[in-house]
Amino acid sequence: MANLRRVVLDVLKPHLPNVIELSSQLADLAGVDGVDISLIEMDQKVENVKITCEGDSIDYEKVEQIIKKSGGSIHSLDKVSVGTSLIEEAITHQD
Amino acid sequence: MANLRRVVLDVLKPHLPNVIELSSQLADLAGVDGVDISLIEMDQKVENVKITCEGDSIDYEKVEQIIKKSGGSIHSLDKVSVGTSLIEEAITHQD
Amino acid sequence: MANLRRVVLDVLKPHLPNVIELSSQLADLAGVDGVDISLIEMDQKVENVKITCEGDSIDYEKVEQIIKKSGGSIHSLDKVSVGTSLIEEAITHQD
Amino acid sequence: MANLRRVVLDVLKPHLPNVIELSSQLADLAGVDGVDISLIEMDQKVENVKITCEGDSIDYEKVEQIIKKSGGSIHSLDKVSVGTSLIEEAITHQD
Amino acid sequence: MANLRRVVLDVLKPHLPNVIELSSQLADLAGVDGVDISLIEMDQKVENVKITCEGDSIDYEKVEQIIKKSGGSIHSLDKVSVGTSLIEEAITHQD
Amino acid sequence: MANLRRVVLDVLKPHLPNVIELSSQLADLAGVDGVDISLIEMDQKVENVKITCEGDSIDYEKVEQIIKKSGGSIHSLDKVSVGTSLIEEAITHQD
Amino acid sequence: MANLRRVVLDVLKPHLPNVIELSSQLADLAGVDGVDISLIEMDQKVENVKITCEGDSIDYEKVEQIIKKSGGSIHSLDKVSVGTSLIEEAITHQD
Repeated sequence: MANLRRVVLDVLKPHLPNVIELSSQLADLAGVDGVDISLIEMDQKVENVKITCEGDSIDYEKVEQIIKKSGGSIHSLDKVSVGTSLIEEAITHQD
Repeated sequence: MANLRRVVLDVLKPHLPNVIELSSQLADLAGVDGVDISLIEMDQKVENVKITCEGDSIDYEKVEQIIKKSGGSIHSLDKVSVGTSLIEEAITHQD
Repeated sequence: MANLRRVVLDVLKPHLPNVIELSSQLADLAGVDGVDISLIEMDQKVENVKITCEGDSIDYEKVEQIIKKSGGSIHSLDKVSVGTSLIEEAITHQD
Repeated sequence: MANLRRVVLDVLKPHLPNVIELSSQLADLAGVDGVDISLIEMDQKVENVKITCEGDSIDYEKVEQIIKKSGGSIHSLDKVSVGTSLIEEAITHQD
Repeated sequence: MANLRRVVLDVLKPHLPNVIELSSQLADLAGVDGVDISLIEMDQKVENVKITCEGDSIDYEKVEQIIKKSGGSIHSLDKVSVGTSLIEEAITHQD
Repeated sequence: MANLRRVVLDVLKPHLPNVIELSSQLADLAGVDGVDISLIEMDQKVENVKITCEGDSIDYEKVEQIIKKSGGSIHSLDKVSVGTSLIEEAITHQD
Repeated sequence: MANLRRVVLDVLKPHLPNVIELSSQLADLAGVDGVDISLIEMDQKVENVKITCEGDSIDYEKVEQIIKKSGGSIHSLDKVSVGTSLIEEAITHQD
């Protein structure tokens, strides 16, 4: 089956574990090369973050498990890229 | 006949199979190198996604079949690129 | 005479032949390397598309013939590039 | 004297000769490598176009002659680049 | 554990030590290659700055210590990148 | 003394000599590699142009002399770049 | 101590010495490779400029001295980059 090369998630999480701890756990997964976590919004209890994972062969279920175990909830799966190469979304007149 | 190198589709689909499952099926087609699926909008029942497929020789009918078999409906075919090389749309004063 | 290297057309066409069929016919012309067709708008009867053709030596009359034979009407010829190399339009303060 | 390497013109022209014919005549001039003509606006009688010519050594008087002979009128000379290399306009806080 | 390669912080700090002094202390940390500090806003007492640190293996606790010792307070951790390579956040339709 | 590598001027000039003649005179100066003149605005008597000169070692007084001799008046010196290499202005949050 | 590689300053200065004279003095400093001065605003008495200095090892105190000796006043230090390499500020959702 084709390899998952990039996945972008919209996640609501508690402040702890912090984004460094969470991104490290994700980046330690086999098949993941790098993880970017960007803060969208935060309040006193939770933070809404955007997680981008890239790699040769990402195991999405393990990504999900780590996020859930750390108390996060996945609001949406905003973008995936799959195949023998990482392709970019083309811009259209409907965007 | 000239090869189909990129196709961009506006699709309405049920949540399952999810975008990872759907993109993997598309990326497994012969002639497809990579697939990007980006979420446009979602509600409780369906999600509107934008699918970009790139490859050397995409078989559009098979792309259509996979989307339809997974319960998706193709709203529009927003962009195609055909030929011996993948060319980009030029920007004009009418855009 | 100087070679036509890129031409961008604003076309109104019936839904059939679809953009894959039309772009394939254009890309099969001698002197054409690639064709991008992007959807601008559509309604139930027709679709307004933007066609970009690139190549070493495009025969514009043949491009016109294919579009007309497929039931399309050329609204405007929005951009052409001619010469020994493909040059880009320069940006000015009047744009 | 320094070589003219790029010239951008705002031109009002009749529909015929069309932009392919006009750009071919300009691209056939010695010292011109390529010509881009982009449509700005058109009505039933005339079209307003932006002409970009690039080359090693453009003879501006010949460019002018071809445009005038084809019935076009030059509204303004919007940009020129002259010298041993083609340089780009720098962006400033006054733009 | 995966390496921290980039961290972006929103910090409120007194005017002294100034941004040159603070960035030098951060850049002197082992595992840090470079530091950019950009001013967001300032008033007579404090300045709000954005700190970007890049490196092969950033020790976040030491970054925190230096900022706090210099009288700064970290408002938010706006972006982190972790892994064997520095990846960029992908753009989505939710941005 | 450090070399002047780029200078950008806001100039008001009569229509003659035209921008091709003026840019050629500037490009013929020793130490100037290329000149771009872009039209900002024009009326029946004068034109407001933006002049970008690049080179290894521009003699600003000679640039000034040529502009003044051709009847132009320098409104402002909008940008200069000086040194052993041509550096670009960095973007800040104050822009 | 880590090297200062870029510094961006918001400066209010009298018209004389002009920006060419001031940038030349800054570019002549040891450790400075290039200087860009861009005009933000001017009135009859003063001009507000943005100064970008790049180099391997900028001595900020000397930069300050030259600006002050020439009658300029530093309004703010808008950006600094320090370290073994020149890094760029990362874009975040808070920008």
